[in-house]
Amino acid sequence: MAYNLLKGKNGIIFGALNDMSIAWKVAEKAHEEGAKISLTNTATALRLGDLQQLGDKLGAPVIAADATSVEDLERVFKESMDFFGGKIDFILHSIGMSLNVRKKNPYDDLNYEYMNKTIDISAISFHKILQTARKLDAINDWGSVLALSYVAAQRTFYGYNEMADVKAMLESIARSFGYIYGRDKKIRVNTISQSPTLTTAGSGVKGINDLLDFSERMSPLGNATAEDCANYCVVMFSDLSKKVTMQNLMHDGGFSSVGMSWRAMQIYSKSLDDIEKEIKEVID
Amino acid sequence: MAYNLLKGKNGIIFGALNDMSIAWKVAEKAHEEGAKISLTNTATALRLGDLQQLGDKLGAPVIAADATSVEDLERVFKESMDFFGGKIDFILHSIGMSLNVRKKNPYDDLNYEYMNKTIDISAISFHKILQTARKLDAINDWGSVLALSYVAAQRTFYGYNEMADVKAMLESIARSFGYIYGRDKKIRVNTISQSPTLTTAGSGVKGINDLLDFSERMSPLGNATAEDCANYCVVMFSDLSKKVTMQNLMHDGGFSSVGMSWRAMQIYSKSLDDIEKEIKEVID
Amino acid sequence: MAYNLLKGKNGIIFGALNDMSIAWKVAEKAHEEGAKISLTNTATALRLGDLQQLGDKLGAPVIAADATSVEDLERVFKESMDFFGGKIDFILHSIGMSLNVRKKNPYDDLNYEYMNKTIDISAISFHKILQTARKLDAINDWGSVLALSYVAAQRTFYGYNEMADVKAMLESIARSFGYIYGRDKKIRVNTISQSPTLTTAGSGVKGINDLLDFSERMSPLGNATAEDCANYCVVMFSDLSKKVTMQNLMHDGGFSSVGMSWRAMQIYSKSLDDIEKEIKEVID
Amino acid sequence: MAYNLLKGKNGIIFGALNDMSIAWKVAEKAHEEGAKISLTNTATALRLGDLQQLGDKLGAPVIAADATSVEDLERVFKESMDFFGGKIDFILHSIGMSLNVRKKNPYDDLNYEYMNKTIDISAISFHKILQTARKLDAINDWGSVLALSYVAAQRTFYGYNEMADVKAMLESIARSFGYIYGRDKKIRVNTISQSPTLTTAGSGVKGINDLLDFSERMSPLGNATAEDCANYCVVMFSDLSKKVTMQNLMHDGGFSSVGMSWRAMQIYSKSLDDIEKEIKEVID
Repeated sequence: MAYNLLKGKNGIIFGALNDMSIAWKVAEKAHEEGAKISLTNTATALRLGDLQQLGDKLGAPVIAADATSVEDLERVFKESMDFFGGKIDFILHSIGMSLNVRKKNPYDDLNYEYMNKTIDISAISFHKILQTARKLDAINDWGSVLALSYVAAQRTFYGYNEMADVKAMLESIARSFGYIYGRDKKIRVNTISQSPTLTTAGSGVKGINDLLDFSERMSPLGNATAEDCANYCVVMFSDLSKKVTMQNLMHDGGFSSVGMSWRAMQIYSKSLDDIEKEIKEVID
Repeated sequence: MAYNLLKGKNGIIFGALNDMSIAWKVAEKAHEEGAKISLTNTATALRLGDLQQLGDKLGAPVIAADATSVEDLERVFKESMDFFGGKIDFILHSIGMSLNVRKKNPYDDLNYEYMNKTIDISAISFHKILQTARKLDAINDWGSVLALSYVAAQRTFYGYNEMADVKAMLESIARSFGYIYGRDKKIRVNTISQSPTLTTAGSGVKGINDLLDFSERMSPLGNATAEDCANYCVVMFSDLSKKVTMQNLMHDGGFSSVGMSWRAMQIYSKSLDDIEKEIKEVID
Repeated sequence: MAYNLLKGKNGIIFGALNDMSIAWKVAEKAHEEGAKISLTNTATALRLGDLQQLGDKLGAPVIAADATSVEDLERVFKESMDFFGGKIDFILHSIGMSLNVRKKNPYDDLNYEYMNKTIDISAISFHKILQTARKLDAINDWGSVLALSYVAAQRTFYGYNEMADVKAMLESIARSFGYIYGRDKKIRVNTISQSPTLTTAGSGVKGINDLLDFSERMSPLGNATAEDCANYCVVMFSDLSKKVTMQNLMHDGGFSSVGMSWRAMQIYSKSLDDIEKEIKEVID
Repeated sequence: MAYNLLKGKNGIIFGALNDMSIAWKVAEKAHEEGAKISLTNTATALRLGDLQQLGDKLGAPVIAADATSVEDLERVFKESMDFFGGKIDFILHSIGMSLNVRKKNPYDDLNYEYMNKTIDISAISFHKILQTARKLDAINDWGSVLALSYVAAQRTFYGYNEMADVKAMLESIARSFGYIYGRDKKIRVNTISQSPTLTTAGSGVKGINDLLDFSERMSPLGNATAEDCANYCVVMFSDLSKKVTMQNLMHDGGFSSVGMSWRAMQIYSKSLDDIEKEIKEVID
């Protein structure tokens, strides 16, 4: 069901790879809601994924660009504005990659060159997008910019590694730039802190399946899916959320506000009972 | 501009008084977006305000009820469901009143009977609404319940007095009940932490005009108005925010994420310069 | 080992019952660190517990008083100051009791008269202590006031029930009164958010043992014990923490900053594996 | 007055420059409390500042080292342990420098090479210190590691620029490494979020004097001084705070918990009155 919430608006979606990507769903949903879209990802991602297919379906240009390169970003904005015949109204930053995670370096044995890359790709790229847009005056007043984050920016999840620190920086960039862009152009900048989601990127994280189960049972509404996230992004791009800025918006079925749920505790307690029984048997 | 976001949905609005009320705007906007509405406030408020007028305009029943009385609340739900011919999809709690503020008792000279009343009216009423709804099974699955709060629940604003403590409790009730209602019925419960707004209620707070100015200049997007708030409530009632629960959603033009803005500092610094000049003149 | 951190200081400890109580340990430790102490609890608690014994050991007066009665509180302050021959330097509020928990009323079936009592005993009593002290000018400049809280004020723990909302209010009272008392008398007011602790009070909470285990494995340093808490209280009463006020201080071995630990996940995953195996066996 | 809180403990202090430095005061206070100390800063800082003088006074070795160089850090740990004849018990990280601030590049015109340097110096150096210590097994069990931060990590202060994002990352590193170091060695890692302090580093921030005044009047206890901070660090290094980890500890006279104080509002309102008067005069 569509509401025309983004009718007449133009948006750039960074980071869609294939139909498991949150960014992919956001692009589809934004298009459904009446927006014109342009899509961008790295040349490698374009080769490995199916973005051209999505571009064809949505009538959206697909632009190969490295979001850590200011030059490439300028090209993304210029080509997008040419295509739209006007400025941008919304942007999604859905970019994250940890080299240390990929190389299985634990958090107390990080390679610092990799860490720099991770920061550049996953956090500073967001600043580069904003700064480039600002210099080109590429976003319409009252535009909306979002980046995707995760609750590990606030609390440690074993195995999430350096990405926690990078997401913390990402959320801070949203505040810092949101202040300036809001004051000067009424443009809002927020992050959405999304439930763990089984995307191609998400599947790199250690023990992701058990974590998903824990997260599902902790969240009274269950984990938010990629499609749920797309709906929420549309709302945050629309004119109905104009005064929300510099926020990290929890979109997680309630997870972040639960310390312990009955459902998760059932699973946890079962193990404890078994352990106690085993100990008892050994003693007997 | 309307999007039919609430088409087919039924909602109860607690706490509208007159056309300055946030609740009033929410009722209008929800109606515009396709919802059926029922309105309720105390008998006194109905006498002093213009709620019947709004009821006439929106074709909504106006129910006199005291939100601290479980009996009255049962009546509100039953009459509303009779009118709608079905269950409720959304509820707005916009109820707050501090007797100690009204009587100008400072925070270190509170009257505790008044404080109990303040808590009952402004916070426990929210629990009573939720508990009554739950017992009557009055809300449809995936329904949405909101209460209005203020950032004073997190940080002290001189003059806001006992209402800070009561709003902190209100926000906690949203989490506590949100957990249960989410787990059992997929119903979400959130609070919206709104910019200071010049309503009839808001005007009781000491020095409200200067605070509004400070808040306006601290917020990169300016204070959120009652109408902005109505838009955001509609979004939170709609199916596009289904996985957001147990949250306190800042709706404040960025205020809560700003420590000091350039615009507010100009005003502040001007006084400092003047004071310095005066001191200098006295010395000279 | 003692450091004389509280030499020359006078303190009132509210809420010690027996040697499992955190307040009991705080009184002992404060005495060890050189403070003079007075002890107070309700007449019933004095009868059920061993407080007189502690009073004898520490040379401290034991005052029967109901912390919800302003009259009783005035008496506590006056008798304490008489005993000390001077004003108070620090206060511990370790008072909490939920009638609905005791009566096993779930959070969606609260008795509101009980809830009022719970609020009065567990939160407003803290305001009453502060307001009474202020009116009697009973606390020395740069004094320190603490109340004990729990992380359920921020996140829902199933079974903790209405106490979550009451602790949220308690923490807000610390901020609200901390602002006034700091501005006017340099007195600081904080809450300590302590690990779940097996006290006589704590043992009323449903499923407390499994929760303690979960909390232990989530916390990199393990749960903070009552004795650890006593050490931290001493520090917060001392002159070395003079500029800390209006804070909720997490004292929990790291629990509040962990989303998922490896150790807790081992327990959780074991159950999942077992469930999977059982399902597989049934299918086979 | 000294309490022997750190008797028998060994600590490394990073980042003292001259007697205005917080790190300088921490070194003095830790020494007073019975600790053995080693001091380190860059070769340039040693040349520009007076660290050798402090070393002489405290009988502490002064080690020239670049905290962004893992090699240098290894040397700092080895030389310190040689000097102490044992492992380390506590560490202070008081290192922060923004090249973009220094070059007066506003936040929407950052030089990204500078930003990388800022991140390396001000945040990743903390990870490098921890990782190096961990690999060398240089810290005793139940040791304590602190870094200094600022509330701009949570809320935007105009002019604080990229340092906000870097402090957000620093605080996250404390959580991430605190989890691992706590779990494996019972070592705690925290940040202290300190009031703005007029150090040589602090004086680089734009409009620092007016901000200090605002901060002073917002904080019920006034700004925390460098000496106050030293006291609090001592407490966090001592055995009395053993179960506090992964926290960002506000040490700010209450600033972070105040939305608007009466004292700050008097200054702010004065300007508003003047502006209104001027407008009136022009109209008249």
